[in-house]
Amino acid sequence: MTAYRELETRFRRVNALGEAAGVLSWDMSVMMPPGGAEARAEQLAALKVTAHALMTDPQIGELLDRARGEDGHDAWRQANLREMRRAWLHANAVPSDLVEALSKACSTCEMVWRKARPASNYALVLPSFKEVLTLIRRKAEAKAAALGLSPYDALLDQYEPGGRSARIDEMFDALAEFLPVFLKQALEAQARRHEPLPLPGPFPADKQRALGRRLMQAIGFDFTHGRLDESAHPFTGGVPDDVRITTRYDEADFTRGLMGVLHETGHALYERGLPPAWRLQPVGEARGMVLHESQSLLMEMQACRSRAFVDYAAPLMREAFGGSGPAWDPRNIHRLYTRVVPDLIRVDADEVTYPAHVILRYRLEKAMIAGELEPDDLPGAWNDGMKALLGIVPPDDRQGCLQDIHWYDGAWGYFPTYTLGALAAAQLFAAATRADGDIVPGIRRGDFGPLLTWLKPHVHGRASLMTTDELMAEATGEPLSDKAFRAHLEARYLDGDG
Amino acid sequence: MTAYRELETRFRRVNALGEAAGVLSWDMSVMMPPGGAEARAEQLAALKVTAHALMTDPQIGELLDRARGEDGHDAWRQANLREMRRAWLHANAVPSDLVEALSKACSTCEMVWRKARPASNYALVLPSFKEVLTLIRRKAEAKAAALGLSPYDALLDQYEPGGRSARIDEMFDALAEFLPVFLKQALEAQARRHEPLPLPGPFPADKQRALGRRLMQAIGFDFTHGRLDESAHPFTGGVPDDVRITTRYDEADFTRGLMGVLHETGHALYERGLPPAWRLQPVGEARGMVLHESQSLLMEMQACRSRAFVDYAAPLMREAFGGSGPAWDPRNIHRLYTRVVPDLIRVDADEVTYPAHVILRYRLEKAMIAGELEPDDLPGAWNDGMKALLGIVPPDDRQGCLQDIHWYDGAWGYFPTYTLGALAAAQLFAAATRADGDIVPGIRRGDFGPLLTWLKPHVHGRASLMTTDELMAEATGEPLSDKAFRAHLEARYLDGDG
Repeated sequence: MTAYRELETRFRRVNALGEAAGVLSWDMSVMMPPGGAEARAEQLAALKVTAHALMTDPQIGELLDRARGEDGHDAWRQANLREMRRAWLHANAVPSDLVEALSKACSTCEMVWRKARPASNYALVLPSFKEVLTLIRRKAEAKAAALGLSPYDALLDQYEPGGRSARIDEMFDALAEFLPVFLKQALEAQARRHEPLPLPGPFPADKQRALGRRLMQAIGFDFTHGRLDESAHPFTGGVPDDVRITTRYDEADFTRGLMGVLHETGHALYERGLPPAWRLQPVGEARGMVLHESQSLLMEMQACRSRAFVDYAAPLMREAFGGSGPAWDPRNIHRLYTRVVPDLIRVDADEVTYPAHVILRYRLEKAMIAGELEPDDLPGAWNDGMKALLGIVPPDDRQGCLQDIHWYDGAWGYFPTYTLGALAAAQLFAAATRADGDIVPGIRRGDFGPLLTWLKPHVHGRASLMTTDELMAEATGEPLSDKAFRAHLEARYLDGDG
Repeated sequence: MTAYRELETRFRRVNALGEAAGVLSWDMSVMMPPGGAEARAEQLAALKVTAHALMTDPQIGELLDRARGEDGHDAWRQANLREMRRAWLHANAVPSDLVEALSKACSTCEMVWRKARPASNYALVLPSFKEVLTLIRRKAEAKAAALGLSPYDALLDQYEPGGRSARIDEMFDALAEFLPVFLKQALEAQARRHEPLPLPGPFPADKQRALGRRLMQAIGFDFTHGRLDESAHPFTGGVPDDVRITTRYDEADFTRGLMGVLHETGHALYERGLPPAWRLQPVGEARGMVLHESQSLLMEMQACRSRAFVDYAAPLMREAFGGSGPAWDPRNIHRLYTRVVPDLIRVDADEVTYPAHVILRYRLEKAMIAGELEPDDLPGAWNDGMKALLGIVPPDDRQGCLQDIHWYDGAWGYFPTYTLGALAAAQLFAAATRADGDIVPGIRRGDFGPLLTWLKPHVHGRASLMTTDELMAEATGEPLSDKAFRAHLEARYLDGDG
């Protein structure tokens, strides 16, 4: 057996164990009774430790070196070797006692945070939050040394391979200048239009479920390869051939839940579109969180909040809930779906104000990793940032620096991928609709075939063959930038177009 | 760290991976969309191979030897070491190429059997069935050599540790003499009573589900530590702190599905009652399939098909389905639940005729393992056995030797545990009701507290501390025999009592 084949066998097993953990995590959020929590934690820990032991076997390094010298690697195999090395570097960069200490610190901190947030009691979580940050800084330094990156970039690279803060700074600085001005214009334009009428409920959960499934299928979700369920926090889980999305049903307002379903469907279609020939190999995985978020936002923000889609979906909504009257007019529903309201809470934000939330978090976490900001000073820095970027100040930390789980749970370097994903979504959708004039008409008749026909070869089917930058350049003719996103915002919110 | 502690750590990890596989298997039967099958097979194979590699690490043998010499083991630790050695012997007995060949042969044979059964085409499955038997014989010989047992006992020992065919022969031979005579008497006694009235349906699935959950809770099932779902073949899955039972709903007849739910609840309560201090250790596991089946049959056959339970449950059934009239009288429902009808299909059999099905399979599989019966001659031997034991002959192999998955899927040595479980159930229930006069009155008022109060210390909480024989002797004062079972049958079916 060649070294390359031996590596494929080993990664196949590690990734199959990772998939097993993925299904167990889905079950934990969707099916597991509360009494199963302890046993499940032990099962997941056993899987993690076992997979980590396989990845840190010293033979992997030797095999990677030998495989490089072997002949006959095509582009996919070469990329697979590159991704294997990346995964191996990440796995071996951090000493196992630090991995364990961090895992425990994050579990503790997350538990305390779950109490501190509703009580708006930042002081309560501060000690364990400091412990997490201390360990995260050590992890960032260890990864930085192994990968030859800055500490922050080394964390970012876990979620977005090749992501670098120098480029993010450029884009985010430009956006941070553009957005406050644009927001003012968008709100003025909105004020000149009719206030949208609320849709009269209630909206029974089973009818929301049926409508969600119907629209998922129209978009291309295949229920022989996936599921729709309920969980407290909607997410996409499972594995590429069995991809499982979740939602939650608010019987007073179906619109947000429904858009959440379409958002997760975008994630799911990316997973489903990954090349079957490369299952369980590193090169066969989704490229990173930027492209993943681009696929959910392309579906939700670009396609499904467009007037074209609402023209198709509004009659189905009205029919699903037996609605009547002017509130169910597509024009009204489109206004509801494109309403801009500056809000203190990121997850409630519209697409115009969302980037400000992300830019704030990105800047703050970068400063904390660099040692330029300490947890004691976080609430003040947060409130200053909100004032500068959105013009509103949280009345308490619950609506401020306590609102997101990420930092308390150890997910540092993740935040920027949300807004980079929004930029990529706009740029990819613009390129797709330029390339095929039937994509928007297709969406208007509920036929996502033309859109998927473009996305599959340009994004989904490429998996991790190339970097995000290379993929964006090949698919759109340009490197990732904020240009298309700005054009999209202007067209939708100033011109009222799409 | 002592060798004993090191062993605990290693078994803890292996068993946590086993639990992970258990949850994934549950998901496969209950939740997974069909398109996920291939990925799931790969995940389960990765878990199996990984756990097997951990169990066949040569250090385990050394640790077991060293741990034996260490001081301070109490009875639980000693038993844990004994069970560790047993698990280790089983895992190491069979060469890995045979494990793999058998796994593939069974998968193939099972697939062919799924076509052969509905077509009643034994010739179709014969070639792959022969292949399975050839490999099973090799496996039995390999285990026999490692364990110092006969080949058949070595297979039986996987499902029922310490189970030996010499003792089973005694009990089954006695039963095979008793049952045909008894069956005739029981059918005569039944003919003298009123024919039971059928319960008029339909019985909507959601109402069956609500009734099932209500009765499960009455019996002691805790839904914060478990679930009730649907699957094609009812089973108990999950893990002790998250035990998941399944059923299926026939809207024309709820009685069979409901008894299935109570049967699985018996399995579930055993798992739930295993000692929390010994989770993930070999000694903390259920003792074997005989005691497992004894707990489901104790709940179903001894407790829930009794007149006492039906007196409690009949009004709840009537209420659940809005029934009225004499069919809902407890006496009538009890007659329905204790009806004896010789049938060709094992899974449809009543408790009087069930042992005959098992004895037939036990004798045939023992002969096949011993090389005294070949697959070519199986259909004839099957039909002769049915004639002798039950007086009926299958008109085709679908209702004969093709009906059960076990042999085609590689589960040889499993069948006798069903009937041994029925004997143990009768013996345990008799001992329990002798010891506490409030158990039957408790069942009559839907209070299973007294019964569980007896079962927990005598069965559930003992896990694998002692052998099945030791446990039965301590709990009932006698070794396992067919005496209590016969007395139970006579009381219920001749005297019409209970």
